[in-house]
Order: sequence, then C-alpha cells, then structure tokens
Amino acid sequence: MIQPFELGTDDIAATVTQLPKGFTGAGVNCGVRKYRPDLGLIVSDFDCAASGVFTKNKIKGASLLDAMSKLPGQKIRAIVTNSGQANTATGEGGVQDNKRMVDEVAQLVDVSPGQVLSASTGVIGVPLEIEKICRAMPELKSRLTTSANQFATAILTTDLVPKMVSTEIVLSEGTVRLTGICKGSGMIHPNMATMLGYFLTDAKMEPGLVDQLLKESTNDSFNMISVDGETSTNDSVFFLANGASEVELKDPKDIEVFREKLMQMSKFLAQSIARDGEGATRLIQFKLNGVVDNDESRRLARSLSISPLIKTAINGCDPNWGRIVARLGMEGIEANAILEVQVQGMTVWSRGEGIQFDDAELSRQMRSDSVTIDIQLNLGADSITAWSCDYSVKYIEINADYRT
Amino acid sequence: MIQPFELGTDDIAATVTQLPKGFTGAGVNCGVRKYRPDLGLIVSDFDCAASGVFTKNKIKGASLLDAMSKLPGQKIRAIVTNSGQANTATGEGGVQDNKRMVDEVAQLVDVSPGQVLSASTGVIGVPLEIEKICRAMPELKSRLTTSANQFATAILTTDLVPKMVSTEIVLSEGTVRLTGICKGSGMIHPNMATMLGYFLTDAKMEPGLVDQLLKESTNDSFNMISVDGETSTNDSVFFLANGASEVELKDPKDIEVFREKLMQMSKFLAQSIARDGEGATRLIQFKLNGVVDNDESRRLARSLSISPLIKTAINGCDPNWGRIVARLGMEGIEANAILEVQVQGMTVWSRGEGIQFDDAELSRQMRSDSVTIDIQLNLGADSITAWSCDYSVKYIEINADYRT
Repeated sequence: MIQPFELGTDDIAATVTQLPKGFTGAGVNCGVRKYRPDLGLIVSDFDCAASGVFTKNKIKGASLLDAMSKLPGQKIRAIVTNSGQANTATGEGGVQDNKRMVDEVAQLVDVSPGQVLSASTGVIGVPLEIEKICRAMPELKSRLTTSANQFATAILTTDLVPKMVSTEIVLSEGTVRLTGICKGSGMIHPNMATMLGYFLTDAKMEPGLVDQLLKESTNDSFNMISVDGETSTNDSVFFLANGASEVELKDPKDIEVFREKLMQMSKFLAQSIARDGEGATRLIQFKLNGVVDNDESRRLARSLSISPLIKTAINGCDPNWGRIVARLGMEGIEANAILEVQVQGMTVWSRGEGIQFDDAELSRQMRSDSVTIDIQLNLGADSITAWSCDYSVKYIEINADYRT
Repeated sequence: MIQPFELGTDDIAATVTQLPKGFTGAGVNCGVRKYRPDLGLIVSDFDCAASGVFTKNKIKGASLLDAMSKLPGQKIRAIVTNSGQANTATGEGGVQDNKRMVDEVAQLVDVSPGQVLSASTGVIGVPLEIEKICRAMPELKSRLTTSANQFATAILTTDLVPKMVSTEIVLSEGTVRLTGICKGSGMIHPNMATMLGYFLTDAKMEPGLVDQLLKESTNDSFNMISVDGETSTNDSVFFLANGASEVELKDPKDIEVFREKLMQMSKFLAQSIARDGEGATRLIQFKLNGVVDNDESRRLARSLSISPLIKTAINGCDPNWGRIVARLGMEGIEANAILEVQVQGMTVWSRGEGIQFDDAELSRQMRSDSVTIDIQLNLGADSITAWSCDYSVKYIEINADYRT
C-alpha cells in the first residue's frame, strides 16, 4: 500500500523517510475504516518545544480545541491522529471522546495528558468510534519505528498518495534532521475535510523560535493552496523540536539555513496537496509579480486560485486569458495595472490588452501535469505564489456522490 | 426558436410578453453567431427617465463605459445589445466600435447618440464585428414590434431559455405596464459572461425615483444570485420609464405598489438566471433568518451560494449539513449561533449540533427542481435570501471545453 513518494526536488531525497532522532511513528487499522490504516501515532523520547497553526473556521473539531489549549506552552511528547471521523459538531460527547483518546496515548507512552496532542480528520457530525481506537492502542505502540511511512499513510482520507519528506540540515555546530508529513486533498465525501501537517526536528530550539518559523513557513505555503476554496473545521499544522541531536539552532546564519529548508519543504508539501486535489489532473501555479508582499496580495493570488472558470479552462487546456483578467478585475485590479500575463511562459496579454499568440501550440504545452501562470502587475516589487489544481468532471462526481 | 417562457407565478401571466406603451423591440441574426439572433434593439417613442446598475469589476466592456457616462442624466430613447462578443479588453478600437454601433442606432431611429445605450455580451478580447452589426441595422429597424420576445432571444449567449415577464400595475390614477427582460447563465465558453437586465415601464417617473427603485430591487435580486461566483466585465441592469401611459408614479402608496411589483419581478428574473445556470439541474434557495439586513449578511448568504461542496452535494441530493455548517464557520459564525438548519423543510441541525433525521427520505425530497435551505441564526431579526444552482458534471464539461 505504501508507495515511495515521488518528490521531484533535487536536494530532498525520495528514499529518506526516516524520522529525526528521538522520534518514532506508527500506523494501524483500528476498524473505523474498512481496510486502510486509520490511526497514527508519533512519539518523541524527549520533551519537544512545540507550536501549532490552526484553522480560522469558527467551528472547530474537539481535537483542535484541545491542541489549541496546549500550544504554545506545553512540552509535547506525542501526537495521535485518527482518520475517517473528524469528531466535529459532536457536542460534549465529542470532547470527552477526544480526552479519552489523549489519555489513552498518555498512559501508553507514559507521559502526562498535557503532553499529548491529537488531530482528527473525516466525516463531520458522527461520534468518534472511541472504543475501536482504544482497543488498537497496544498494537499501535508495538509498531512504532523510526520511519515516517506508516504514520503518513494512516492519516490519509481521500488522498491518493502519502506525503512526506525528510532532509538533513548541516548547521555550524552539527547536523540536524527535519521531517515533514502532511495530508489533504479537498473537503470531501462526506466532508473528509482537513489539511494536516507535521514538522518534526531533532534540533534544539527555543519555543519562541519554533512558533515563529512555523508561522512564517505556513503563511507562504499551506495558506497559499486551494483545492476548492473551502476551509475545513480541523486544519492543523504542528511543529515539534525535541533537541535529540544536541545541536542548538541559535546562530542567526544557522536559523537562516534552517528557515530556508523549512520553507522549501513546506512549499513542496503544500504543492503535493494541491496536486493530489480531488479529481485533479494538473497542478496550477499562480505567480503574481510586481505586488506588495502583504495579506491583500495573498488574497488576490488566492482569489485566482479558487476561480472555477480558470480551473475548468486549465482542465480543458484552454489558454483563456479573458477569465484570468476578468478575475483580476473582479478583485479591483485595473486593466492598465496588468502589465503582462504569461501561460506556460508564453505571453498572452501585454500592457493592458490581449496579444496574438499561437493558441494551438500553447494549448499543447498546457497538456502537462503542471501549468504556470505568471502575472506582472505594477503595484509593488515583491512576488506572491499560490497553488491550486484544475476542476475536472471527477471533482463533481466525487463530491456529488451520495454518502450512504 | 422562441418558446413561451414558463413563469410559475400567479399574477404575472406567462403569455403576456408585450412591451409597455411607447416601446418596441426587435432582434436579428447579424452574422456574428452562426444561426441564433445576436443583435437586439429596444426603442422608446418618448424620452425616458433612465438609470443603470453596472458590474463592480474594474475591467469593463466598452459598452459599459459608454452607458456609465450617460446614466443617470441623459434622456434615453434606445438600447442596442449584441451577443457573442463582449467588446472588452479590446483597447481604443473597441471604444470606437461601440461608438459606431451607438451612432448607427441614433441615426436609425433619429435621436442623438447621447440618447442611445449599448450592451455587449460574449467573448472577451476579440474585436467587435462592427461591419456585420452595421449592415443589419435596417433589418433590425424593420422588425420592431410591441413584443419583447425577439429582443429577449437576441441577447442570449448560453442561456437555454429567454427570460422575460410583463405585468400591469393598477395605480390610483390609472394603469401602467412594467416589462422585465434578462439574460445570464454563468461566465462561459469562452467567457460568454454577463448578466444583462432591462426594466421598461410606461409610467411617468422622476429620474431620481427610477434610480432609487432600480438600486433597491437589484440589491435583493440580481445581486443575490450566483452561478459560479464570478463577476463579469459587462454586467448591466437598465431601468427606463417613458411616461407613455401618462400616469405619474408619485403618490407614496402608488410607489409602494410599484416597488413591490418591481421587486417581485426582479427576484423572479434573478431566480430564472440561477435556474438556467450552466449545467444546472436544480435551483438552490438559501434563506438566512435571524440576521441583520446589511451587507455583511448578504455576503454570508452569497458565500453559502458559491460553495462548491454545497453545490455538488445538492447535485447528488445529499443532505450533507456538515458542509453547510462548515461554510458558516468559515465565514466566522460560531456553532451556537446556528439555531437551526432545515433542508426542504426538514430539520437536520438544531441548537448547535446535528440531529437525527430520515436521510433517505430527505434525499428523495431533494430530487426536485428546487432545493430550499433555511438557516436560523441568532444574530438579528431580518431575513436575507440568495439563489444559486447545483454544480453538475456538465458545468465542468461546458467550461473545460476548448474554445476553438
């Protein structure tokens, strides 16, 4: 079932899915889902400086409410994740079920419940099958290994591939390891919502630095992808640093190196979610140049990335620049502010109006597993990138399919 | 080709598609489109008090820029509309082409160009085939009749049915007539964008009243529909009052009667656009109760109406309340503010959590040509309604289809 994840970047090797020092992971089928692994656990042998980034949706799963009460602040030792049931909109019973899952893990690995985080993903509004989860705990513990693969598979819902990546980072005082794992492919049948992300490092880090680096990297990666413009009730990204390498991340130059690797990994994983979007046939990269690096520009890039008309045009390999320009106009951009639009590197719009281009040739070039749209505006000197995927007939089929 | 439009309301009769007194209309095929009528004209024998409401998209068609320069203010005598080409993002040439279309009509009906409005709908970025349009002018004039049907058909792009309705309104001093015509079914292959609306009355009205009533009625009707969340570059709604009935609309009670009819007609026409959305199989009505009547509530209702997950669930007759509640949460609504959610009148959520209901029976009831979602919040005492349609496989097929 577990396939090596094709990474497509040079310096992050495809075969390395080892967890950093002092971390172990496991995944089992506890019986909530029919065959697939549906319960995962990550354990750290040492206390971790930890931080989390959570959904802005006002309706939050029980696991999120618990994790938000612990982060930042608590020294974390474990994260448990179940897939198939979101434990959201399940009332006080749901809160109790989550508490029991956390308590069981705490007992299992002999730490306090305050040191255990949880995450749930799956159907909204059905009670967690907590008995099945509890019964699987001993097996889960017995399967703990130093590989990320089991865990990365157990957290999936409708994803077609597990998403994980490991790298070593050489710092001035030694080498540390960084592993990223995530899941997500849209909000789906029936609300298998949720983007989950986990970053683990054996670097020794101050909690404040963990928090700062996570927020920075999330902002330009996971916050810039869209499959369908929906925000899940359970989105969470965690970052744990357990210090097992005994190499401290403190020197500004080292921090810069680490930040760069973390950002690169975050963008890679974020793209892998967009690429694995429900029914997606290709990744779309929207690169806005000539903008100010602020929330307004991010909103603009995201608006392009959720446009149903752009997403369907790209599904049909149609270099339909009218839809791109109209969407920019809808977001308040004047025609003369749009200096250039390129699709797959071919200019289709220049200085306020559309230009002649080889339509058939460009369409042929769009028959690729990724399509890049470069837009040059005259609003600033920065660049913002957002990722999305095309809308296919399959997206509708997946999401219109009746639950029962 | 012209089928009587099925109206479905009691007091607006299906067979009456007569224009108000002093108005005539026509439609011809000028050759831009292969077979279908693609050029329409409405003429008034008398000067009209007139107003218009236009797209907020910053990129506007040449016809809009011209109409916006004339309204409010000019006494209007004619509106010409071509379908198939939006004349948007066509540079200075597009402005000149539009001017020529307006000038030709002015000469044709012997009024000044300042008294002629134009509207274009169709492909963005291709030059208007102005020669074909000019050549068809004499035929267009020769076909002017007192019926709305020819015009209503000539302005269509991907709409499956023409959309028009006429009614008589009895006021204290006599009877006036009101006709509404519109088109629109999403932004489409390849950007046959645009919602166009025309309200014509033979009541005698002050320009300020024309303007006020149009803005009020548009706000709760055409501004509350969505097919795919896209805003076209050419959206326009016009309201012309030519006074041919010699009955003045001035008495506050009369104004109230007229306002009510105009609102009713606007909502009916707006719904008919949503129902005719690209690939749509059913109309969706989102009724938000317990809100404050303001822009924030309208935005909330519209957000529900553009949710791909809700639209696909309704396509699949899936009473998937998790998606509705998650979308409300995404827009900042807390779970405990959601007092009740009903689908087709059946309660699926009550006081902060989902409740038991007959899933199979409700799904059966959703196999209808319209689905109503009632949401009771605790934020105010008003109600807001938005209309949309489901997302079907056909929506993707229509919009992914390559242009050439």
